[in-house]
Amino acid sequence: MSETKIVIIGGSAAGAKAAAKARRLDQKAAITIIQREPDLSMASCGYPYYVGGVFNDRNMLLATPTGVVRDPGFFQKTKNIKAITETEAVSIDRKEKIITCRSLPSGEELQVSYDKLILCTGAGSALPPLPGIELDGISTLLSMSDTDYLREVKDTKEVTSAVVVGGGLIGVEACEALAGSSMDVTLVEMAPQILAHLEPQFAGLAANHMKSKGVKVLTGTSIKGFVGEGSKLAGVKLADDTIIYCGLAVVATGVRPNIALAKDAGLEIGELGGIVVDEFMTTSDADIYAAGDCVEVKHLITGKSTLAPMGDLANLQGRVAGENVVLGNSVQFPGTVHTAICKIFDFAAGATGLTETAAKKSGLTNIETVVNASPDKPGFMGAKLLISKIVIDKESERIIGYQCVGNGDVSRQLATAAMAIQGKMQLSQLTCADLPYAPPYSLAIDHFIASAHIVENKMKGRLKTITAAEVKAKVDNNEKVVFIDGRGPDEYEVLRLGIGEKYIPVGALRGQLDQLPADKNAEIICFCKISLRGYETALVLEENGWTNVKVMEGGIMAWPYAREQ
Amino acid sequence: MSETKIVIIGGSAAGAKAAAKARRLDQKAAITIIQREPDLSMASCGYPYYVGGVFNDRNMLLATPTGVVRDPGFFQKTKNIKAITETEAVSIDRKEKIITCRSLPSGEELQVSYDKLILCTGAGSALPPLPGIELDGISTLLSMSDTDYLREVKDTKEVTSAVVVGGGLIGVEACEALAGSSMDVTLVEMAPQILAHLEPQFAGLAANHMKSKGVKVLTGTSIKGFVGEGSKLAGVKLADDTIIYCGLAVVATGVRPNIALAKDAGLEIGELGGIVVDEFMTTSDADIYAAGDCVEVKHLITGKSTLAPMGDLANLQGRVAGENVVLGNSVQFPGTVHTAICKIFDFAAGATGLTETAAKKSGLTNIETVVNASPDKPGFMGAKLLISKIVIDKESERIIGYQCVGNGDVSRQLATAAMAIQGKMQLSQLTCADLPYAPPYSLAIDHFIASAHIVENKMKGRLKTITAAEVKAKVDNNEKVVFIDGRGPDEYEVLRLGIGEKYIPVGALRGQLDQLPADKNAEIICFCKISLRGYETALVLEENGWTNVKVMEGGIMAWPYAREQ
Repeated sequence: MSETKIVIIGGSAAGAKAAAKARRLDQKAAITIIQREPDLSMASCGYPYYVGGVFNDRNMLLATPTGVVRDPGFFQKTKNIKAITETEAVSIDRKEKIITCRSLPSGEELQVSYDKLILCTGAGSALPPLPGIELDGISTLLSMSDTDYLREVKDTKEVTSAVVVGGGLIGVEACEALAGSSMDVTLVEMAPQILAHLEPQFAGLAANHMKSKGVKVLTGTSIKGFVGEGSKLAGVKLADDTIIYCGLAVVATGVRPNIALAKDAGLEIGELGGIVVDEFMTTSDADIYAAGDCVEVKHLITGKSTLAPMGDLANLQGRVAGENVVLGNSVQFPGTVHTAICKIFDFAAGATGLTETAAKKSGLTNIETVVNASPDKPGFMGAKLLISKIVIDKESERIIGYQCVGNGDVSRQLATAAMAIQGKMQLSQLTCADLPYAPPYSLAIDHFIASAHIVENKMKGRLKTITAAEVKAKVDNNEKVVFIDGRGPDEYEVLRLGIGEKYIPVGALRGQLDQLPADKNAEIICFCKISLRGYETALVLEENGWTNVKVMEGGIMAWPYAREQ
Repeated sequence: MSETKIVIIGGSAAGAKAAAKARRLDQKAAITIIQREPDLSMASCGYPYYVGGVFNDRNMLLATPTGVVRDPGFFQKTKNIKAITETEAVSIDRKEKIITCRSLPSGEELQVSYDKLILCTGAGSALPPLPGIELDGISTLLSMSDTDYLREVKDTKEVTSAVVVGGGLIGVEACEALAGSSMDVTLVEMAPQILAHLEPQFAGLAANHMKSKGVKVLTGTSIKGFVGEGSKLAGVKLADDTIIYCGLAVVATGVRPNIALAKDAGLEIGELGGIVVDEFMTTSDADIYAAGDCVEVKHLITGKSTLAPMGDLANLQGRVAGENVVLGNSVQFPGTVHTAICKIFDFAAGATGLTETAAKKSGLTNIETVVNASPDKPGFMGAKLLISKIVIDKESERIIGYQCVGNGDVSRQLATAAMAIQGKMQLSQLTCADLPYAPPYSLAIDHFIASAHIVENKMKGRLKTITAAEVKAKVDNNEKVVFIDGRGPDEYEVLRLGIGEKYIPVGALRGQLDQLPADKNAEIICFCKISLRGYETALVLEENGWTNVKVMEGGIMAWPYAREQ
């Protein structure tokens, strides 16, 4: 029997990983990567950090940890894998098992035959067909050439104003990359919030942090097109005909799976626009696999198909496909819980599992949630803030979602929650979780465990809470509510909501009960900076006979709206 | 019915938490804390950082996040809890439900009656009865007064040499606190390794890091006693009669549960010397609970009783006891997986679940393990090293242990693993785990997931490995082995083992196969800095017919012994 011919179309995350895995399991196979771009194994998630000047050696985006660039020579020498770059796969003849390719520099055609094929065609920009989209000065941030272009614009310092269109992960990272240089940066997002994978409250906190770093954030704002001076971009025209003058626009309006090749070959495409694969990463053709941003995968909580174009999952899927093409369908990629994290200047923001909104949308309506704000470690170790929201399915008592923002150790919080969700852990396990504690790393009761404690108190009816959004609505509607901030003058002078709240430090409350409404059924909402003293305040009031007392979840730190101070 | 009398003996972590929880659930109860020390709610895990000068405001060890010292006035005002400090509980009359106490300053006796009692008597130093133990200049690091004393010694800069006796968590933290000041610091540990909760290899790596920071580490070294000049400490005498001259000795030879009160009252004491409690934290007397360092708890993997004197668990147990004394036995503390983390200068070291040694000791012998070394994030984001060991139970396919050291983000690794263990997750879930990835926080394939990949390869027979200890034994025995380091000259000039290895960069290997033994059955051991290229080297050799090829786990970075360079 002659050697197996394994062909991989696409040589970035999933493709390169699949090829390497296949090689490790079959030293005899002829393995070929067909790659449209000039580079291989690009660390595409690192592009914004090169643009932003976090590092200056462009090769680090293409190199192994020891600095060897992963070019076709590297793949040949160390892995015995043939990589054909700058070559596009044009069509697949599934009957004859032949791929027709075209060299991009020369236009020459090339036929490559396969026994097993893995499609890792990735996802591409869904560039909006707007007037002026062809002007010089408009770029995406999806390729090495985009990256080189944006870095050059940044370094030459000739552009004084930039607009980023789209407030998803890449858009937000692009803002940070461009800000702090010669440029004013404006983020324009069509939806009412940035970062669609977060709840509005959490996206609002992230947007506030961006604003504090000088980025203008315009949500709920559509654009009509781009305005030019000759062939050069001069500005972005908004829906109301306002023009934001700028020399650079980065379009980050999302990506769509690259499926033209698969579709033309008659492979099944899903409702969300990705290639349909099973848990073995097999497409509707048993000899063709697919992995990475071009496929639809299973959501581990809802069981439904979903798009999850993330670099880490692409690698894991590539590894599964690479093994299965060699050994037959033996290993599985079970699915995703949509874990994501994003650096936003001094902040991190992320989520894992379902948000409250997503849970309800997918029919999980019997849930409980709470927002918790607390330091990540003791004050004496330089505490930083974490604000999180936990989502519990009341029927199964399992954690199904967690999101976290703040300048504290968000990464550990999300990793903890991601494993709790994937381990199908119940609330009673979270409230007594044994996590690594020492003062340099966490509080004695870790923020994640505290979140579990608070939601448990809520579920047991020991704590009545109200969200920032509900409080805002009451304020906007001029409802008759008594607000109590349980902090002292030192604190409220530097930070306060200004929604008509009374300031009664919790330690003095028992002596100042006469300041509270005589009507024991009056609605009273308590809070403080993070609502821990707000909680203590509520307990004292209930002890003294007030019956309609609520705590505002997360306190002032979780308030995403404008404050008085 | 009159109000319930709840008494808590001990007002540090477990006691203060239990009292606060009980108050939140019963606003009418009379709640009393009896505390031997002058302070309450001390952040005892923070003592080494105050001694070390990480912060200078002593009150931060005793205060709420907003700076209010948790003294009896605070407990009374904000929580309506009576705290009696500097008062020792002397005996418990279980029949009459009366505790006899004695004021330490005045010696006066006091009777306190209870309906429900919670014992949070903590753990105390097991001071060795050595000659000279009473000399001035010998201290533990377990109390505020110890802390004040050590801070003063450090600040006055009169002592030029200090010896820390005992290399557990507190001993190691004490070394860091004292080092870098005017003092030379020597750590003396009786056992062959420091940090008994880690494997010898990992403890060795931690010890090497301490040595690189100037601490002398003497393992396998007993002490005979202390030598004085008058009443003052002059030195520590080792078993071989060597004297280490020093003006300060910190004795950190471990803690034992404080059980005298419980034992005298006839409560059941366990084989390990802790108070026996069930999952509700009830002792053998249904009206007496116990929580914190004084109790034995269940190990969640072995099911056996264990001592786990950790501040975080004490808080969680206190919360459970506080709820159950009010509501009856309704919530449980399920147990521990012995998760621990410790800062060691620029390093962190920790473990969760069972080490290989502990697993075998407890009868879990059908296990697989691997050591993995890799950066925590991409090189272009300032990667730092992580070295970890994963332990898989082959029968259940579950992860049962993980330890990690390094200057990278060890805390996230341990949190991830701790939840995976408590969620009883199987290897196939770990290899495809959906963790928070972005370049500022992790590699595309996170270190934890990579560890799962490697152990899976090993279990599937695709990777033959050898540990550093096994290699060291071969070197010491002059066994005939070919060692290949797959790195290039730039790298081995700055870092190398020097055990007779050949240097063949993996990219050049296919062209230099003539440098390898003609005997295809010769034993060949491959490695590199972290053994990734060692693995690639092994694959190339196997492809070319060598049959007895092994990879040294974790490479040079996981080698705990002396190196040539």
